[in-house]
Amino acid sequence: MINKLVANIQKTGAPIVVGLDPMLNYIPKKVQERAFAEYGETLEGAAEAIWQFNKEIVDKTYDLIPAVKPQIAMYEQFGLPGLAAFKKTVDYCKEKGLVVIGDIKRGDIGSTSAAYAVGHLGKVQVGSKSYAPFNEDFVTVNPYLGSDGVNPFLDVCKEEKKGMFILVKTSNPSSGEFQDQLIGDRPLYELVGEKVAAWGEQHMGDTYSYVGAVVGATYPEMGKALRKVMPKAYILVPGYGAQGGQGKDLVHFFNEDGLGAIINSSRGIIAAYKQEKYADFGEENFGEASRAAVEDMAADVRSALENR
Amino acid sequence: MINKLVANIQKTGAPIVVGLDPMLNYIPKKVQERAFAEYGETLEGAAEAIWQFNKEIVDKTYDLIPAVKPQIAMYEQFGLPGLAAFKKTVDYCKEKGLVVIGDIKRGDIGSTSAAYAVGHLGKVQVGSKSYAPFNEDFVTVNPYLGSDGVNPFLDVCKEEKKGMFILVKTSNPSSGEFQDQLIGDRPLYELVGEKVAAWGEQHMGDTYSYVGAVVGATYPEMGKALRKVMPKAYILVPGYGAQGGQGKDLVHFFNEDGLGAIINSSRGIIAAYKQEKYADFGEENFGEASRAAVEDMAADVRSALENR
Repeated sequence: MINKLVANIQKTGAPIVVGLDPMLNYIPKKVQERAFAEYGETLEGAAEAIWQFNKEIVDKTYDLIPAVKPQIAMYEQFGLPGLAAFKKTVDYCKEKGLVVIGDIKRGDIGSTSAAYAVGHLGKVQVGSKSYAPFNEDFVTVNPYLGSDGVNPFLDVCKEEKKGMFILVKTSNPSSGEFQDQLIGDRPLYELVGEKVAAWGEQHMGDTYSYVGAVVGATYPEMGKALRKVMPKAYILVPGYGAQGGQGKDLVHFFNEDGLGAIINSSRGIIAAYKQEKYADFGEENFGEASRAAVEDMAADVRSALENR
Repeated sequence: MINKLVANIQKTGAPIVVGLDPMLNYIPKKVQERAFAEYGETLEGAAEAIWQFNKEIVDKTYDLIPAVKPQIAMYEQFGLPGLAAFKKTVDYCKEKGLVVIGDIKRGDIGSTSAAYAVGHLGKVQVGSKSYAPFNEDFVTVNPYLGSDGVNPFLDVCKEEKKGMFILVKTSNPSSGEFQDQLIGDRPLYELVGEKVAAWGEQHMGDTYSYVGAVVGATYPEMGKALRKVMPKAYILVPGYGAQGGQGKDLVHFFNEDGLGAIINSSRGIIAAYKQEKYADFGEENFGEASRAAVEDMAADVRSALENR
């Protein structure tokens, strides 16, 4: 799956990923109204609105992008119907040839991490049958519990040729509270980065590892340092656009081969129609606005890489 | 809800919680067969077996215990039907007067943590209506992202008078890889413990805070140190029994008032019928075996507290 991610990035020339994190207030009124007309103002109605919104954005952008990253919390908050919309979104994106990164940030002790791993990446056994319940291609994993929490994901990744991105340095303002604390003369995130490199050696694709890392666009200097610590890890970089990152700040997340990083934008793409820059599309053409925002983002990142 | 937890503990005289973490291989063959006869060897069949198993254990133990802790991963691995069984279990336990601790170990950047918080503890808005999708009383939270990841949970907890347990020192063997790293002369888990105390001051119940901590039974010395760092925090202590902890090792997790800690056992209770000690009950009376295991565990913890 890391090979497919790399191939998709090379095919599109766009090392970017669209974060499908649909807050209800991102979804145009008309899409919501249609869903509520059918299902009422219910969790099912919200889930239908999310699904129709996602589908339109995917339909309008899938040929330009290598991957999507649905944030499961935005679905889980609508309970079971929301999670059904998550699954439908994952399945649809895979049909479209996209790599799907489930942003689930799970992580627990051994047997529990194993349950998350089979549920999201692998197959669960029921009597003589087996099922792939959520079936993402990659997931994000929280490392706080150490190797016990990561190894069960690694086992399933090896079996299924799938991958994960481990939280190393997150994009949020308070990420430093624990992650930046110095252990001797090195910050905790660097220690986690070293572990990512070690876990990654156990499951290599052709040029990159199936084990990647999450490092926020909002911390470009740390990205530069971490790039060296984990040379074979793909870095998933959230925080572009709405959270403040820009293409030129992000070149050091990439290797010399122009690969090794994939930049995520969520709100900046899926709610593009709300920005002044794309307002001319009008609310009803929100998918076209997202397409224009993807084109602009891909051009920004490409030009930054060409001019570095 | 922390007041209700304390009241339930005082009423039952049992500072224990039953971990409803049903692996399929814990569930007696007959229970599985009945479920598969109705739904086939499907995710729905697995979910039905889990639900029937849980219901029997809750029916046989609810009068002896203050709380349950369903581990969501064990349900999530069976996809949407599994999560429906999680919700059914939460609802049923609340009907029985139990405090429900959703062991979800979520944690993300601000707006995403907010989505988890409303989904699990609060209410989500859909048009003019609002819904409580999973509606647990407490959840567990991963602190790796710092205050940004915790504050949205805190906001919802204040609104709903609910609570959370933040991972401080987990029970698994590799928990020390990151959590024990020294920041200056203090381990990371102590720093997290201090933050738990600070977050907890913002949302106090009558005697204890709505913000508690997870500290593994397998690390009693660290529990003793952390007890002093977070005097007002309830400590949720996993790792009793199957993972190796015993009542006498756990007295220092409690305050002088005999309160302040709640000991979890999962496999040791729910799969008690598989232990030699309870084998006489027979597989068909697994609920009675669980009841006996609860009585033994409560007696072990009580006697340890009396003899300290």
